[in-house]
Amino acid sequence: FARGRCLLERLGRLVRRGGPACGASHPHPHPHPHPHTLQPQQRRHIFLARDDTRSWLGLGLGAAPLWKRGLASSSSAGAMPALERGAYATLTEEDLDVFRGIVGAANVLTSEEDLAGHNRDWMGKYEGASKLALRPKTTEEVSRVMKHCHERGLAVVPQGGNTGLVGGSVPVFDEVVVSMARMDAVRSIDPLSGVLICQAGCILQNLDDQLQEVGLVMPLDLGAKGSCHIGGNISTNAGGIRYLRYGSLHGSVLGLEVVLANGEVLDVLHSVRKDTTGYDLKQLFIGAEGTLGLVTAAAIHCPPRPLFKNVTFLQCRSFPDVLSTFQRARAELGEILSAFEFLDKESLDLSLRVHTDLKNPLDGGGGADDEEGERPFYIVLETSGSNEAHDNEKLHSFLESAMEADMVTNGAVAQDGSQFQSFWRIREGVPEALTSYKAMYKYDLSIPLQTMYTLVEEIRQRVGDRAYVVGYGHLGDGNLHLNLAADSYSEELLS
Amino acid sequence: FARGRCLLERLGRLVRRGGPACGASHPHPHPHPHPHTLQPQQRRHIFLARDDTRSWLGLGLGAAPLWKRGLASSSSAGAMPALERGAYATLTEEDLDVFRGIVGAANVLTSEEDLAGHNRDWMGKYEGASKLALRPKTTEEVSRVMKHCHERGLAVVPQGGNTGLVGGSVPVFDEVVVSMARMDAVRSIDPLSGVLICQAGCILQNLDDQLQEVGLVMPLDLGAKGSCHIGGNISTNAGGIRYLRYGSLHGSVLGLEVVLANGEVLDVLHSVRKDTTGYDLKQLFIGAEGTLGLVTAAAIHCPPRPLFKNVTFLQCRSFPDVLSTFQRARAELGEILSAFEFLDKESLDLSLRVHTDLKNPLDGGGGADDEEGERPFYIVLETSGSNEAHDNEKLHSFLESAMEADMVTNGAVAQDGSQFQSFWRIREGVPEALTSYKAMYKYDLSIPLQTMYTLVEEIRQRVGDRAYVVGYGHLGDGNLHLNLAADSYSEELLS
Repeated sequence: FARGRCLLERLGRLVRRGGPACGASHPHPHPHPHPHTLQPQQRRHIFLARDDTRSWLGLGLGAAPLWKRGLASSSSAGAMPALERGAYATLTEEDLDVFRGIVGAANVLTSEEDLAGHNRDWMGKYEGASKLALRPKTTEEVSRVMKHCHERGLAVVPQGGNTGLVGGSVPVFDEVVVSMARMDAVRSIDPLSGVLICQAGCILQNLDDQLQEVGLVMPLDLGAKGSCHIGGNISTNAGGIRYLRYGSLHGSVLGLEVVLANGEVLDVLHSVRKDTTGYDLKQLFIGAEGTLGLVTAAAIHCPPRPLFKNVTFLQCRSFPDVLSTFQRARAELGEILSAFEFLDKESLDLSLRVHTDLKNPLDGGGGADDEEGERPFYIVLETSGSNEAHDNEKLHSFLESAMEADMVTNGAVAQDGSQFQSFWRIREGVPEALTSYKAMYKYDLSIPLQTMYTLVEEIRQRVGDRAYVVGYGHLGDGNLHLNLAADSYSEELLS
Repeated sequence: FARGRCLLERLGRLVRRGGPACGASHPHPHPHPHPHTLQPQQRRHIFLARDDTRSWLGLGLGAAPLWKRGLASSSSAGAMPALERGAYATLTEEDLDVFRGIVGAANVLTSEEDLAGHNRDWMGKYEGASKLALRPKTTEEVSRVMKHCHERGLAVVPQGGNTGLVGGSVPVFDEVVVSMARMDAVRSIDPLSGVLICQAGCILQNLDDQLQEVGLVMPLDLGAKGSCHIGGNISTNAGGIRYLRYGSLHGSVLGLEVVLANGEVLDVLHSVRKDTTGYDLKQLFIGAEGTLGLVTAAAIHCPPRPLFKNVTFLQCRSFPDVLSTFQRARAELGEILSAFEFLDKESLDLSLRVHTDLKNPLDGGGGADDEEGERPFYIVLETSGSNEAHDNEKLHSFLESAMEADMVTNGAVAQDGSQFQSFWRIREGVPEALTSYKAMYKYDLSIPLQTMYTLVEEIRQRVGDRAYVVGYGHLGDGNLHLNLAADSYSEELLS
């Protein structure tokens, strides 16, 4: 119990003045953000502009994504799966003229320099060969662009912030990139009902900043918030670190405006919180990765903004202890628990090794970390609520009880905005740190909590020295990030 | 400000010992429960067993429900819209033998006595003429029943707790009733991830009782909880009084098992909280009223159960004041606000007139009620949280500030379980009280908050003496119940 005392002494500093208010939360200073990734099954979709509307709404029962169909074929670019280009038309000078007439010459990008950022994902793992990126400003422009592509049989890939980690937002061959970057208008914010209506190209962080002014908060938050678009979040059904608190976009998204493959505009942009009229068509576009249509605008329910936040960095001896801590946090912190992320020791070591400005908040604090042969786990736990004193009291009492039960062996509570930020950066810096390796295999898995970490251990044992294996993720929503990093991509490792 | 003092004195009693803990919340003693109703557009669907699977999944783009198609025709039963029976087969003795072979003779109901409850809705407004109700126990039995009906061309209506107010759960003509009453098994509850998996015929209250034992709560709650089935809740996309806190079933439902019209079983019964694999097909069945398939089982995410609750009964001078109070409650009560219901004076008067055991909690308390010519509004506001002292302090401070700002003119805080229950019964007793009239027109509307009550005032002015008009509902999710009660149904009133 001696170790417990150590934390409790630190906790003495908990009731602080002028701690980080909510708005000051964790900025995301990394130039290359890392959004919540997708499940492996979802990588590589192509927007098949040729298909008619019926098959677009055909629920995908018949239409396998191109990459699956082409798996057995030859051509391959780097680490991408072997694919074959579909029988799509090739761009002509006439097409460019048509597009210039729709979006204006300045928004028809054709130079290699202009296209570089649109052809390549931020990890540099996937690269396409598009000859054209379009930057429409309005839904009508998107509709006219899609109508032309549909008539001409040109393949299209919609692109948001291009922050995805599974190559879904870059072309595979020479698809036309439809970038949503200029569609960044906020149409309305209603402080009373909490409804935000905006274009799909709005950057998540910008939306959250605007909502803050009227006491609201975006119901999702992820590392890429500084660059990712809300349209991309919706199309990939992004979860992120507030999923635990605010739930799925299937609940938060009240309405969508979508341009279908043939240019038709589907307007289900309801802004009432509860709408039970007819079938809920918009749900199909949430997580469809643009394969059913291109999301151009959304109505989103935004909850009241919590006024105060606390972040703690905790250490547990084992994964079962992490699970017990989670269960106790859910029960004791109840309505103020807003994030519960875990990292294994390998993830922590990697993050600290690459981000040299960060250090382990528990260094010198004693605890299991010092014991020989132990491989502890770490938790970033956040609370947010509307009353600072109440929040602090709840957190204090939870930590005391978790240490008394010996679930948590060590821990620290962020004392100011800079600590708040650095605790978060340790966790959020893991994906970025992985890019220090030449080859990465990323898996984003939703599996039952009890068996979650067993998978990491098994993979680690199987690959041995051939790769560095890390496991981390959003425990709150049963979401594990299992990543392998190595010096080169290899078929042997994949198998 | 003198009025304010009055409330604050009552509030002196707020910090109580042994107040109603959460589990003791408001039981629903009315024998005839009243669930959250549907939008008018959704009334009267028939499960068209003859259609093939493709058109069932055809998103309703082409297939209008039967009652719409038959609107211009003749036959009419009481207050029901004029409908014409489709070209469905008629039951034979051979059919009954087949069904006996599937569900057992005891669960094939054919006597008038046994069928009475299945043919009639609880308001007694809609009545069908089914000759057969089946009570399957397993998904396989449902599948076999549907397969037979499909092959024979027999029309089917699925039936849950039959607590609906818009006639969606009773037959129109002689459809086969498939009652889910015996499919009430809880398959599993995982306290760690909060995932409940159960059959569709489980009664909402029973599920909540079982969850309470492991510290979880159902993410929805409505007046009919004592009789309504979770399958019916899902099929009607029920909202209810906790929508404000836990959001839509589109977010809470993790997976479904559905039997399609041809008997095929669609198993999307995922139990992980976040699943982004492929299209989210299950969403289509939420709110589809059984027209796309029959929900047989569900996986539902259940949040940690709050430990303490408070209920207050407040009075405002005007509807704009109700809106201001709502906005302030969202901001100041933040994460502990769990319900915000409003009633107009007409609703309150009606509820108290019929439920003679209830009385106005504000009687004798002074306030605007006593002022001549005023038509005040009333609010039932509930908080729930994990720390009693914190909750009480937040509520106290909110009420003080709302009265100081003169938004709230009077109010009372429930002091014990019986007051807690009676405050809720005033609000929940309105629909039941309406049944004291011979004719009822019920509308359940989702409209922008600002203009919500204007509609009630306009309707009241239009109908004049011909009907008693009440407006009440879930302000938290922008949901207005607008009901007209009269001595008889009349075409004149409807127009």
